[in-house]
Amino acid sequence: MSDSSPTRGAPIGVFDSGVGGLTVLRALRAALPLQDFIYLGDTARLPYGTKSADTVARYSVQCAAALSARGIGCLVVACNTASAFALDELRLRYPSMPVIGVIEPGAEAALAASRSRHIAVIGTEGTISGGAYQRAITRRDPKARVSALACSLFVALAEEGWTRGTVAEAVAHRYLDALFAGAAAPDTLVLGCTHFPLLIEAIRAVLPGPVRIVDSAATVAAAAMRLLPAAAAQAAPAGQAARAGRISWLATDGAERFARVGSAFFGQTLEAAAVEIIDL
Amino acid sequence: MSDSSPTRGAPIGVFDSGVGGLTVLRALRAALPLQDFIYLGDTARLPYGTKSADTVARYSVQCAAALSARGIGCLVVACNTASAFALDELRLRYPSMPVIGVIEPGAEAALAASRSRHIAVIGTEGTISGGAYQRAITRRDPKARVSALACSLFVALAEEGWTRGTVAEAVAHRYLDALFAGAAAPDTLVLGCTHFPLLIEAIRAVLPGPVRIVDSAATVAAAAMRLLPAAAAQAAPAGQAARAGRISWLATDGAERFARVGSAFFGQTLEAAAVEIIDL
Repeated sequence: MSDSSPTRGAPIGVFDSGVGGLTVLRALRAALPLQDFIYLGDTARLPYGTKSADTVARYSVQCAAALSARGIGCLVVACNTASAFALDELRLRYPSMPVIGVIEPGAEAALAASRSRHIAVIGTEGTISGGAYQRAITRRDPKARVSALACSLFVALAEEGWTRGTVAEAVAHRYLDALFAGAAAPDTLVLGCTHFPLLIEAIRAVLPGPVRIVDSAATVAAAAMRLLPAAAAQAAPAGQAARAGRISWLATDGAERFARVGSAFFGQTLEAAAVEIIDL
Repeated sequence: MSDSSPTRGAPIGVFDSGVGGLTVLRALRAALPLQDFIYLGDTARLPYGTKSADTVARYSVQCAAALSARGIGCLVVACNTASAFALDELRLRYPSMPVIGVIEPGAEAALAASRSRHIAVIGTEGTISGGAYQRAITRRDPKARVSALACSLFVALAEEGWTRGTVAEAVAHRYLDALFAGAAAPDTLVLGCTHFPLLIEAIRAVLPGPVRIVDSAATVAAAAMRLLPAAAAQAAPAGQAARAGRISWLATDGAERFARVGSAFFGQTLEAAAVEIIDL
């Protein structure tokens, strides 16, 4: 990003295994409209959610290196699985750069939302079996109880665009009914996968009314604003209209599919021609 | 496989992006019970179905090289996407070895089954958009009509083990109802993805009664028996009981998940400890 002016600051690098992290980028963009971003989707190797901890950590280090080489000033790990398995390693490798994952902000937001201290977390197989949300929540509040459940089909539904209606609700019922049955059921649900915000209507439709939903995309944007006061200040510029931040798009495979499926996640149309394919 | 006796012949190498190809191995094993096999699931990089042609071809060449290095005498590409994108390249690289894909046998079986010459093919995004089934069928019968549809969620359902019941049938209805509506609907359905045979009951439940289903796993086993007369002869050994063929298991990630999810695809319990993890 050689054309970034010093006052604007270096771009924020955001990576995910694919398009899911675009829900995080969307929230970051809304919070920091003047900020430049570089988004990297490791589409050649998605999904991370079913892969082992070692493999996910290795891939994440490669993603971070590619973004670091392009001069980012902050790294957002917009993938729950990568946040679970690679965050410590990435912080060791980039000690002078803020490295923000999606799990810690989600855990904090869940504890802020819950009154009963019984919190449900749903995510991919890797995120749930790795136990990172469970640990992040109980480290902050040892009395909290966490019920965690892998909901792999939600990922496929979001990618297929079947985000509401009969099938989405049937899947949501099958995953969530038992989890939220009974008087001691959780009062808060953490969407611990960046794909899941697309299904929020179907999920809401099958939950008991009082359950609060914590969206990790929104919470990570809030965390970025806390960590980056200079960038946050840009969010409310005084005086003349400022240029909107620039977003550079990188993927490791399939620009056309990245743009097509990613548009629903980002909430606006992406152009395949704007996506640079890189090899990691 | 240095302990393969010459009379038994070299093992057959079978690869897939993950566990889906185990439905093909299961059919091969039933057809050739004395034959040795080496199965490789490229689990670190699954799925192939959403990746570009170039990437799938590159991964397939690496899989074939790993199996070739272990002394196989025949290669079965047990992945529809890899068969669509890599078969020609693999045949060029291994001119002296039979290389069998799943698409040609499936196309032949579909034409043998169809009376109306209107054939439906379902598969992953990559298989369908690549058009390999469509070409393989119309090359054999230029008057045949092919209606092709990507059914990505079937893959996720099979991996989740939700192979029958409300959700599976709701998904099958949503994909297939329009395809099989009307008097000119196809009379034959090709399951063009190795995951789909697990869902055959749910698929059958939503199809009009007379539609015939062609399972590419079964058709590739028949093709292997035709191409390997010596191996086929082993299928009916005369005289004394012979040792059952040996299967060696390779994967590129996650032995535990490979064994757990793969057991349903292979139809018998796999042990994670028996799975060797290799790097491609």
